[in-house]
This record gives sequence, structure tokens and C-alpha cells, in this order.
Amino acid sequence: MVPNVTGFSATILTLYPEMFPGPLGTSLSGDALQKGIWSFEARNIRDHGIGRHKAVDDTPAGGGCGMVLRCDVLAEAIDAAIPENDTRPRLLLSPRGKPLTQKRVRELVQGPGVVLVCGRFEGVDERVIEGRNLEEVSIGDYILSGGELGAMVLLDACVRLLPGVMGKLESGSEESFENNRLEYPQYTRPRNWEERDIPDVLLSGNHAAIKAWREEKSDKLTAQRRPDLMSKPRS
Amino acid sequence: MVPNVTGFSATILTLYPEMFPGPLGTSLSGDALQKGIWSFEARNIRDHGIGRHKAVDDTPAGGGCGMVLRCDVLAEAIDAAIPENDTRPRLLLSPRGKPLTQKRVRELVQGPGVVLVCGRFEGVDERVIEGRNLEEVSIGDYILSGGELGAMVLLDACVRLLPGVMGKLESGSEESFENNRLEYPQYTRPRNWEERDIPDVLLSGNHAAIKAWREEKSDKLTAQRRPDLMSKPRS
Repeated sequence: MVPNVTGFSATILTLYPEMFPGPLGTSLSGDALQKGIWSFEARNIRDHGIGRHKAVDDTPAGGGCGMVLRCDVLAEAIDAAIPENDTRPRLLLSPRGKPLTQKRVRELVQGPGVVLVCGRFEGVDERVIEGRNLEEVSIGDYILSGGELGAMVLLDACVRLLPGVMGKLESGSEESFENNRLEYPQYTRPRNWEERDIPDVLLSGNHAAIKAWREEKSDKLTAQRRPDLMSKPRS
Repeated sequence: MVPNVTGFSATILTLYPEMFPGPLGTSLSGDALQKGIWSFEARNIRDHGIGRHKAVDDTPAGGGCGMVLRCDVLAEAIDAAIPENDTRPRLLLSPRGKPLTQKRVRELVQGPGVVLVCGRFEGVDERVIEGRNLEEVSIGDYILSGGELGAMVLLDACVRLLPGVMGKLESGSEESFENNRLEYPQYTRPRNWEERDIPDVLLSGNHAAIKAWREEKSDKLTAQRRPDLMSKPRS
């Protein structure tokens, strides 16, 4: 698929282009892909590998386990994939990166798209990170076998916010992280289930009381599970 | 696929069972799946939906946008999928959850596997979270269209640590988060690239100097990008 110059376009550099769109071809993001709201191109880094075996990695200078993705190979793959004047942010999915946040996702969807570089092995030669202006982004404090799932996570988070993707524009405004608080508990029918009732206040029709109850629950949950967020004001 | 009682087994409850294994069928985790090191079963929550349209959700009590996954439907799906005495942790992927960490991943792989519930819509009725003892887990501070990618991320992080999956047992010990520090910069051949050289120390053969250089770089990077980690001791 060719990047769509009018919509949100993603160029993905990976050793596993066949993984894409994968889960992004289904559901919300799959529908949006069909509609041309976003587009992607997955390019194989190995096409720029060296020699008969198309080698892309080598052992770490200074010793250590694992293999390191070569700077020359990755730079060539990047240069072949995007024009020099491409203004999209170039993100390298990596546990060393700054953590991805909903705020950053909202910024990214204001722009023309993203270039996503999926690391593998023990890491990527530092020189290509500097030389091709890659910004390291982490989706969380755990280690994955590669950056591909991170790229999918980032794209899914972006795509659902693109105009025309979610049913209601409002959906998303009261969500976790949008106001530095985790979301309050939700309930729906049936009213009684296994001796558990929907809290009376939610059925009272008293909007002020419902709002107050939800804020209290939301604050309590956030304090319990995410004390780090509580230091920030409810926005 | 049927859970393998000897390996690490995942039961996944989702509205999109066709998403699995998806990216997990490729590369490291795909090989491990083939070898029977782990197994999964993806069950469709909608099989337990209500009425002719197999409804699984309804509007939130107390008002608000979006739809909420019904407690009765999800409880039935869980009860049909796993025996009452199933000892695996039951995790609900949700932005309200406690953040997933590499430490938690290491704990999970010591056990028999996981039951993963993938939320969708605005949320899941709180009563089934309590009534079926679901533990909410978040993969990061952003909102996805559903829990499926979160489930894949969690499984990928687990599977790569299972015995026999990674080439070298040592690989993983010096990684980001394993010692509360981000990983130092990596370099590999060629020695010179676009006027950028591999730092001399890494080519010196002086192991003590290399170790000191790496620790210094690692500390500096962590302080810059993740001041939250710096308060914890290098372990």
C-alpha cells in the first residue's frame, strides 16, 4: 500500500513486513484503513542487508550478548523509504525511549503521519539513531522481542483518534489519562447480577450527584493504583 | 488450539479471536508456538451474547458516551472457558490497570500461564471484575481500541523469557529495566560510518573500562529520559 498524502500515513521499517497490518486490519483500525483514513507501507530492512545472506546485524562492539542492527543497513533502508524532506516524526520503538503517552498520541495525530522503525536483537547502532534523527519511544517498562508490536500499539492509539474513526466525537474525552485520572467504574444492565447491584446513585437521575460520585471513585482508584498520576491536577 | 498443560498456556477472551496469533505467529514467539513451548486458545465473548443479535454491551448506567461490556455475558464466557480451579492469573487489559512491568512479566512466566480478558468499548461492568476476580493490567499510558494488542504485548514479553525461546540464556540480563537503568548505546561494524566512529574505549579490549563507560552512559541516559527510574538503585 502506498502512503496516502491526504490522510495519516505510516511508513514502517521492519524485518517482518508480513506482520502488518495484522491486528490493525481488523475492527476500528481495519475499517479506517479500508476507508483510506489512514494508510501504511511496511518495508523490509533486510532488502538492504549485506552480501549473499543479506546480513543486517553484527556482534556488539566491546562485547556482550545478542546482536546489534547495523547503522549502514538501517540508514540505507530509511533513505530508500522516505524522501529527505519528509516531515513526519521518525520514531524508533525501543525500551530505551521516552514513554509514549496519550498526550503524545494526540500530538502525532495532528501531523501527517509517522515513520516507525522497529528494532530487533540487542539494539540498534547508536550512530544511525543520531545520524537519521530517530526519536526513541517506549510503549512500556517491559521488553518485547521486537518493535513491531510497539508500532502496532502506537498506530492503533493514533488511528482511533483520527476524524471519522470513532462513532462519537465526544468518546475519548472522559477516558483514563485524558484528565490525569483513571476512569471511574462503569455499570450497565442488568441492574442486579449475582447479588451485586448497580450503585443507586447511578440510577438516581441526579447528574450532579453522579458526577461527584464518579470523580470520587476516579480519584480513589488513581491514588490506589497510580499515585504517580495523583500529583498532577485533574484537568 | 488446546492449552498445553505442560507449557505456558494462554486463554484469551476477546470479541476478535481471529486476531490471534497474528504477530505472535511469526518470529521468536511463532517458533515457540510451533515447538509447543507455549499455547493459546482464543475464545469469542460474543458466543455468549444475548438474543438474536448476540448483544454483548449496553449503555452506561448514569449516562455517558460509549458502551459497556455486560457483566453477565463476560462472566458466562469466562466460566465456559476455564475450570473453577484454574490457578492462572486472570488479567483484564485496561488503561485503568496497574502498569505492566518486566518484573511482573518475570513472575508470570514462573507460573502455568495466563487468562487474558480483552476489553472493548468504554469499559467493562465493574461487577464482573470483582465477581470473577479479574486483575486490571495496563501496558501504558495511552488508549487503545481494545485489549487485544495489550494481550499480544503481554504474551510476547512472557514468551521470549520461556526456557528454550531465546538463543542464549544470558540474553536479557543486561537489558533495559532489568537493572532499573536504560541500556547503554550499542555499536557494531563498520568501525567508521558517515564520519561517525565507534567510541575507542569499546575497541580497547579493556573490560573494566568498557563496563565503566557503559554504566556511565546508561546512568546519563536514564537520568535524561527516565528520572523516575533513577530514584531506584542500580540492581
